[in-house]
Amino acid sequence: MMTKYSFMDDYSEGCHARILEALAATNLEQQVAYGDDLYSLEAKGFIQEMVGDQNACVHFVAGGTLANLITISRALRPHDAVISAETGHIEMRETGAIEATGHKILTVPAKDGKLTPSLIQTVLDKNAHFPHMARPKMVYVSNATELGTLYTKQDLTAISALCRDKNLLLFVDGARLGAALSAQKNDLELSDIYELTDAFWIGGTKAGALIGEAIVVRNSDIAEDFAFCIKQRGALLAKGRLLGLQFRELFKDGLYFELTKKANRQAAQISEAVTSAGFELAAITETNQIFPILPDSLIEKLSERFQFYNWGAAEEGHSTLRLVTSWATEENQVEELIKQLKA
Amino acid sequence: MMTKYSFMDDYSEGCHARILEALAATNLEQQVAYGDDLYSLEAKGFIQEMVGDQNACVHFVAGGTLANLITISRALRPHDAVISAETGHIEMRETGAIEATGHKILTVPAKDGKLTPSLIQTVLDKNAHFPHMARPKMVYVSNATELGTLYTKQDLTAISALCRDKNLLLFVDGARLGAALSAQKNDLELSDIYELTDAFWIGGTKAGALIGEAIVVRNSDIAEDFAFCIKQRGALLAKGRLLGLQFRELFKDGLYFELTKKANRQAAQISEAVTSAGFELAAITETNQIFPILPDSLIEKLSERFQFYNWGAAEEGHSTLRLVTSWATEENQVEELIKQLKA
Amino acid sequence: MMTKYSFMDDYSEGCHARILEALAATNLEQQVAYGDDLYSLEAKGFIQEMVGDQNACVHFVAGGTLANLITISRALRPHDAVISAETGHIEMRETGAIEATGHKILTVPAKDGKLTPSLIQTVLDKNAHFPHMARPKMVYVSNATELGTLYTKQDLTAISALCRDKNLLLFVDGARLGAALSAQKNDLELSDIYELTDAFWIGGTKAGALIGEAIVVRNSDIAEDFAFCIKQRGALLAKGRLLGLQFRELFKDGLYFELTKKANRQAAQISEAVTSAGFELAAITETNQIFPILPDSLIEKLSERFQFYNWGAAEEGHSTLRLVTSWATEENQVEELIKQLKA
Amino acid sequence: MMTKYSFMDDYSEGCHARILEALAATNLEQQVAYGDDLYSLEAKGFIQEMVGDQNACVHFVAGGTLANLITISRALRPHDAVISAETGHIEMRETGAIEATGHKILTVPAKDGKLTPSLIQTVLDKNAHFPHMARPKMVYVSNATELGTLYTKQDLTAISALCRDKNLLLFVDGARLGAALSAQKNDLELSDIYELTDAFWIGGTKAGALIGEAIVVRNSDIAEDFAFCIKQRGALLAKGRLLGLQFRELFKDGLYFELTKKANRQAAQISEAVTSAGFELAAITETNQIFPILPDSLIEKLSERFQFYNWGAAEEGHSTLRLVTSWATEENQVEELIKQLKA
Repeated sequence: MMTKYSFMDDYSEGCHARILEALAATNLEQQVAYGDDLYSLEAKGFIQEMVGDQNACVHFVAGGTLANLITISRALRPHDAVISAETGHIEMRETGAIEATGHKILTVPAKDGKLTPSLIQTVLDKNAHFPHMARPKMVYVSNATELGTLYTKQDLTAISALCRDKNLLLFVDGARLGAALSAQKNDLELSDIYELTDAFWIGGTKAGALIGEAIVVRNSDIAEDFAFCIKQRGALLAKGRLLGLQFRELFKDGLYFELTKKANRQAAQISEAVTSAGFELAAITETNQIFPILPDSLIEKLSERFQFYNWGAAEEGHSTLRLVTSWATEENQVEELIKQLKA
Repeated sequence: MMTKYSFMDDYSEGCHARILEALAATNLEQQVAYGDDLYSLEAKGFIQEMVGDQNACVHFVAGGTLANLITISRALRPHDAVISAETGHIEMRETGAIEATGHKILTVPAKDGKLTPSLIQTVLDKNAHFPHMARPKMVYVSNATELGTLYTKQDLTAISALCRDKNLLLFVDGARLGAALSAQKNDLELSDIYELTDAFWIGGTKAGALIGEAIVVRNSDIAEDFAFCIKQRGALLAKGRLLGLQFRELFKDGLYFELTKKANRQAAQISEAVTSAGFELAAITETNQIFPILPDSLIEKLSERFQFYNWGAAEEGHSTLRLVTSWATEENQVEELIKQLKA
Repeated sequence: MMTKYSFMDDYSEGCHARILEALAATNLEQQVAYGDDLYSLEAKGFIQEMVGDQNACVHFVAGGTLANLITISRALRPHDAVISAETGHIEMRETGAIEATGHKILTVPAKDGKLTPSLIQTVLDKNAHFPHMARPKMVYVSNATELGTLYTKQDLTAISALCRDKNLLLFVDGARLGAALSAQKNDLELSDIYELTDAFWIGGTKAGALIGEAIVVRNSDIAEDFAFCIKQRGALLAKGRLLGLQFRELFKDGLYFELTKKANRQAAQISEAVTSAGFELAAITETNQIFPILPDSLIEKLSERFQFYNWGAAEEGHSTLRLVTSWATEENQVEELIKQLKA
Repeated sequence: MMTKYSFMDDYSEGCHARILEALAATNLEQQVAYGDDLYSLEAKGFIQEMVGDQNACVHFVAGGTLANLITISRALRPHDAVISAETGHIEMRETGAIEATGHKILTVPAKDGKLTPSLIQTVLDKNAHFPHMARPKMVYVSNATELGTLYTKQDLTAISALCRDKNLLLFVDGARLGAALSAQKNDLELSDIYELTDAFWIGGTKAGALIGEAIVVRNSDIAEDFAFCIKQRGALLAKGRLLGLQFRELFKDGLYFELTKKANRQAAQISEAVTSAGFELAAITETNQIFPILPDSLIEKLSERFQFYNWGAAEEGHSTLRLVTSWATEENQVEELIKQLKA
């Protein structure tokens, strides 16, 4: 147990109480193994309904790196590469997981961590020397991005149009998709993302589940035989019920978005406190991450009571912090933090 | 929910009640992510104590295929192959997961699914054409085997001696290690297995956990940097606490072996009922799997009430079934099954 | 230089004199790199003509293991496996090259090294447990086989029909395709093989070239982007002219089959000498490999003058040899060998 | 055959006449296959002598991408990455070959294509987030670089010292090592490179051979079992004699460096003509590549007679060309080119 209250990330606690209740309530029901249990079927149904396609291919896996490596290696042929922002999770935080499946990541610096059609075109232009360069074949974006920023419907539509024009696949990493879709500025729905992409995933781990991400595949070439790839990469749980049950609970009545909205709201409150106290933000607060630039003396004081990441020195005598709220963040801790910020 | 009572496998239910209680009790404690939580540290401590080495390298992953593919690909160099019985799980039930990491499996037919020094030597002899054949470098055995049979201390010691003599690594798949160590005929302890092997894993999924296997590595070359490989293959859970907590609960006071013994006892009861009713067994019952050869008429009757695998026709008018008991198998269902067998 | 005359293999000498002459004649002509030279284009044209498709996809690589690993990994998706006889070159003599690209080989014992529809069906039946087993997707056969035996047109047609029925790809390793097509019993032509398969290759190394194999792909899914895969696996030679020129020379006027026929004829002569001297053959002589069973005393005598493989003890006081003839085998050495056999 | 004289690259012709003569002279000598022929042994001896270690591990392969992918994948463990300049051949011109073996390339922009200790340190600092990032484990440099620039003894010594301090492996791509070591400014010898690195290779293809690169490994961990990896990646030629004979010829009396010096001299002559005619160079001419910036009218005139790469627009009305000389470049063509430059 941590001795100070943590705003370090959105996965420091267990899961929402309703998930624990559902686990307890169903614990001794016998279910078919390997994801063919009733809970998984129901959860798939809820997701199919949200994306507007009863036949959408939906699979549950335990974590985000699995979701990424399974989908990308399923979709690509040996000579295909995937395009990512330099800050992309597959490039920066997955220990070469994509390369370990045999594929190159082609990166490009991207403001706010967001790819654009022109950035993608730059990568295409630089990697066109047939057959001496891996073929750019897929575009990978995260929404929200690794920097907490958002893709608007216009952003994603433009990328999708380029992809279809250039015969590229489009894949969205949704580790924090809940936070994105619950943002004030968001104008995307799950059905839009389904329509605009070839595959994406909906993160559970950072939105109230114990573990679990839901991969949704629209492209039938990728969807075909997807279960083989899940099994081959070690992601097919004997007790798939554990994943299915959590997503059933999160999606049966909107709990999922209730939780991500709540985290965003708390982030907005903290963000507002920062600026109203006269401090600056290193990045606009769009989801559940706040990047305040604070005087080092205040940071020292805050750290007596709270845990958070210090992203390094900013202007003289100041540093940038990263604070993250979540489904589990306590209201009174937010209040206390705000009090200290304003003091 | 299944409509008949199932003896199909040992992963049809959730988890032991104590695990659910522990999850609830700790749910909102904030813990460090990625396996550095206190529960995981405690669970590792219990395992280190059982294997008799406070510095034993222990890691938790969600499932058995991950445990196998991570450990094997961590241990082998590109040109190395792993030796397995033809019935080995990595050969028969993992969708080419080992090959997907680049390594060949060299198989040999093995009575009762058990490798022996002479079978291993056969593989060495057949694969010695340098440099035209992949180099046999690791021996993979499962205990209990995929057929429910056991390795004795003498068996494993002989294999270990050959491995050390021939510079081979020895790796034990322990998906049902609990069942093995709880068997009446067993004379191995965890500390023996640790001593005799380079790495092995202890299965939680089939012994009362929701998910989870504990990989234990003695060989320091393999142990070094193991965490990188766990992360690279997508097996590092943000909420590693889920795995740690379950193993803490299973190992803190012997619950794990209590559960596996109970399943073995029920299997023995059913097995005895089969033979005392005058029927034969296709394989001796050593752990929690029973392979009765029953008249088809009786099978038809049993299947009105129970679910199980039919392994195919045996002598005229008979078939072989596979029945599996588990930590969750209900006593009254065992009694009812025995009653019908004896009727 | 060897001190005794060698019948060990068909790659102990350099290349046919005409290839050396062509190399010298064209040496200082400047040519476009990476296989786009005029000689490669001409050679492709000759092959396209022989297979009866002007648009056939043809690529040259330096060796057989490259031809196999490039084509197989190009054709398969991550979860796909390739079916081979237990004696297949990819299984027995390529150091896990196919597995190193991520794919499982599913093997089956095969009389004379030849697959049949029923053997293939056996593999399909044994590997049907979705999604727990790699999906059988390609059939690999060698013609001539690793044991020197042949596929007839009827054999290959039956396999091809099964493959198309079961949605399997068919791939022929042609390391000794010249020997096969030049055999007395052969009734296949290159155009048949093209028609019946998805891809195959024509071996140059064992038929008079210095190095080089010609991969021919009929299946357009595999043919697409094939050049990327050749480059990615390190097989795209800067001076692709070296490969193209040799195949141009071998195929422009039938030299290739002249050479393979000559080797087969010499093998037939030796084989006849063996039997007419009263000795037995371990396998019928169909191509350029002879497997005589000789008295050890005779073997000792032969080995004073000749080199060959001793395949091990046969009946009492006898052993089985493997003798190989080639485009370069000297007539007087064949005569001397025959003389000693008959003595 | 090209219609204009080509300065496009150093692999447009066949090979030096002495190699053709040696091929003819030895053609029908029977030799042991797979690189154990006498010519390969002799060639290895010459190289071992030059690097000053009679036990140096030397292997021959057909091309540079094979040399790179075999050595890098042999040396690295699954979670290891290789550091390269952004312009490195493995990053820019090998179609993801390194990633196809499972390893990430960590790149850094590098002036003149040259890595330095501080650039390498930058990569180490950026990739230190254990275990979420692939571990930087090897440094890859090309000498001469892809831009024709050189590493001095001081440069390479500094990199080597950092590598040993940080437990990194150092690997030199020597596709144009001959050009580098023959440069006027060069102060490195083969024995220095051997001493300072863990492995490197000596390019034959661009220095008068038909095909072939010689991999030299000093690090015994990498050298061990190297032959398996050569075979597994498809690079073990049945007629290894073809590679060995060429290197024997190139190294038995200094032909290799004679040829690379001659190409460098021609490049210097052209370079001097460029500057004495009043034109600028985009990069200093250190080896056999010249990058003149010429008026477009002059370029148009030159292109009536010569072929070369146009690297794109420079200052107004000018473009940058790449001209390459080689062992085969004709003196009279150089003279004609110089005449046109000066006209």
